[in-house]
Amino acid sequence: MQITITKNFSFGGLPSKVVISEGLPEGMDILGAGERDFPAFLAVCDRNTESIAAAMLPDAALCVLDAGEEAKTWASVERVLCAARAAGLGRDGLFVGVGGGVVCDLTAFAASVYMRGAALHLVPTTLLAMVDAALGGKTGFDLEGVKNAVGTFYPADGVFICPDTLDRLPLREWKSGYAELLKTSILGENGFFARAGAIGDIALDGLPESAPQRGARRTALLACIAEAAFFKCGVVEEDPRERGERRALLNLGHTFGHALESAAGLGTLSHGEAVAWGIARACELGCALGLTPAPRAEAIISILNTYGYETRAPHPLMRDEGAFMRALAADKKRKGGAPRFVIPVEKGALLISQEKTPGLRGGEGEALLRGIAMNDYR
Amino acid sequence: MQITITKNFSFGGLPSKVVISEGLPEGMDILGAGERDFPAFLAVCDRNTESIAAAMLPDAALCVLDAGEEAKTWASVERVLCAARAAGLGRDGLFVGVGGGVVCDLTAFAASVYMRGAALHLVPTTLLAMVDAALGGKTGFDLEGVKNAVGTFYPADGVFICPDTLDRLPLREWKSGYAELLKTSILGENGFFARAGAIGDIALDGLPESAPQRGARRTALLACIAEAAFFKCGVVEEDPRERGERRALLNLGHTFGHALESAAGLGTLSHGEAVAWGIARACELGCALGLTPAPRAEAIISILNTYGYETRAPHPLMRDEGAFMRALAADKKRKGGAPRFVIPVEKGALLISQEKTPGLRGGEGEALLRGIAMNDYR
Repeated sequence: MQITITKNFSFGGLPSKVVISEGLPEGMDILGAGERDFPAFLAVCDRNTESIAAAMLPDAALCVLDAGEEAKTWASVERVLCAARAAGLGRDGLFVGVGGGVVCDLTAFAASVYMRGAALHLVPTTLLAMVDAALGGKTGFDLEGVKNAVGTFYPADGVFICPDTLDRLPLREWKSGYAELLKTSILGENGFFARAGAIGDIALDGLPESAPQRGARRTALLACIAEAAFFKCGVVEEDPRERGERRALLNLGHTFGHALESAAGLGTLSHGEAVAWGIARACELGCALGLTPAPRAEAIISILNTYGYETRAPHPLMRDEGAFMRALAADKKRKGGAPRFVIPVEKGALLISQEKTPGLRGGEGEALLRGIAMNDYR
Repeated sequence: MQITITKNFSFGGLPSKVVISEGLPEGMDILGAGERDFPAFLAVCDRNTESIAAAMLPDAALCVLDAGEEAKTWASVERVLCAARAAGLGRDGLFVGVGGGVVCDLTAFAASVYMRGAALHLVPTTLLAMVDAALGGKTGFDLEGVKNAVGTFYPADGVFICPDTLDRLPLREWKSGYAELLKTSILGENGFFARAGAIGDIALDGLPESAPQRGARRTALLACIAEAAFFKCGVVEEDPRERGERRALLNLGHTFGHALESAAGLGTLSHGEAVAWGIARACELGCALGLTPAPRAEAIISILNTYGYETRAPHPLMRDEGAFMRALAADKKRKGGAPRFVIPVEKGALLISQEKTPGLRGGEGEALLRGIAMNDYR
């Protein structure tokens, strides 16, 4: 018997379906057979996911992008748009992105602007994309070294998640996604943090050899991915365009993490490594401000350490402290000119604004943030 | 006394304010003083509107684009985005586009994707932009010679229309916008077609010398612009993303017109010249299909002729019949693979689909369309 879980969401009035299944989804499912009729479609992948895309959609016109964050540029978007034109897509055509976060973000951006918006299905093939990048409608690419400086809100009409595609995922990629999964579990409730913490060994040890254990671990993995994916979609449903504070909570670890990525040079760190380091910083900042209970911070940092994430400050790749502080100040989540931070609290997390939080304002706040990044604030 | 008309619209839940006034709007109005607080802003213009932008917003960071359709590319969008970064705009920053359709479309696209969407005010300075391009949220630029192949729906938060800026508009630009004004008046009711037809002499003769006549003509012009602008906004309110058939009516003249622009080479014809020619073709197609009463077609074509638009087929710039027919078939308004046409009827206009309309299907329909474009169908 094959498990398939389908859940329908609505992001700002736009319907979005998430399908999680064992076994590769059938091409016909991905193409929306029986639901909508697309006169033409284009599959987008990168060199790593070309074989998955070809297996799922053997007759597809295929646009194969270069892999990695370096490819997350307008040039790649333009290749997708021109391939769509060559494949004869009209405004009623379908884009299918098969790949990790970069492919999903690029394909989704291209679909969102192609003739002012075509249909979009995503087949995330990395843990990061399954629990984060493919969900919730944020699309984008990098400009002048700033991650996702250009983008749109454009939820996929359908997201098809199959954890089987993770079997051959490199450890570094697995860890990158696992950090986002842990992040979501910190925001979640009812023991999700413990459940998510318990599957990290798959990353280190791979799946167990014995078939029953293997099956049980696979099911646990699928359940955790589903919980994280649905949690994120639920948050986005409440605040699709991040106008309120709800969606901003998903940025836990991202304010420090993005700044580290900028300072280290885009592509040097995996996104998840940066986020894990950022979560540790958010814990420290929360403790320093008296918002995060010490046992909570310790539990979080302990799991991050168990699975080999770098949690110490300064990060070994933090080459340029000035660039880090500038990136922190320019963070695009800022409101009214001042950055905002997401801080783990007893249950879940809290959004705080730099200028409204005692101890975080002005020169004192700058010194604290720098001190936390460089480990010299105590 | 200075006339100012303000009207609030809502496009798919997004509020959009249109302000029409005699005299240049004050910089502070454009910057939203008293309504919203923008920590940073960027003004975008082209070489033709640099002086207007500088007069209205003397302290603005200014991004000056090349003028004309040739500049409607990603390269221009990128210049705007990088200028916004240099001016320190965050997601809560404001883009102000001051110019014609190209500047408005480019600025609006850039605002729509900058950090996934910043605030946008537009100050249209051509008749075309006042009655059409700046209104209703369609943004975009050209790709591979296809007009607006890339774009978003992103209504401006505020549009500030001042007909005074038209005084120095070249005749060709005036005529380009006047064709869109006439198009809207064909769709409208209650004598709007007659009122719009009566102000075309301003284009040919300029404003009268005597002050009272001059004032009266100015007021008539302002009233017609307001009527056309509000009519378009009303249509867009009902069907913001062109999902239904209502908004598609605004494409009267555009299916043939865009195909002519493609076949003639982008930038060879003004948009309005192409639309005027397309309206004449839509009239002929409507007559051939028995949908447009002959007197209605004659009245429309007669006004177009009075003001010197080319209404005859084939158009003198129609160099490549094959390219024209391919562009017609690839029109992005098509649904289910077949183009749709807007046809003037007794009152207003009607949307028809090529494949659902007797006489327009298959080889017979292709022959009719080609015949109408080349004037050899009778």
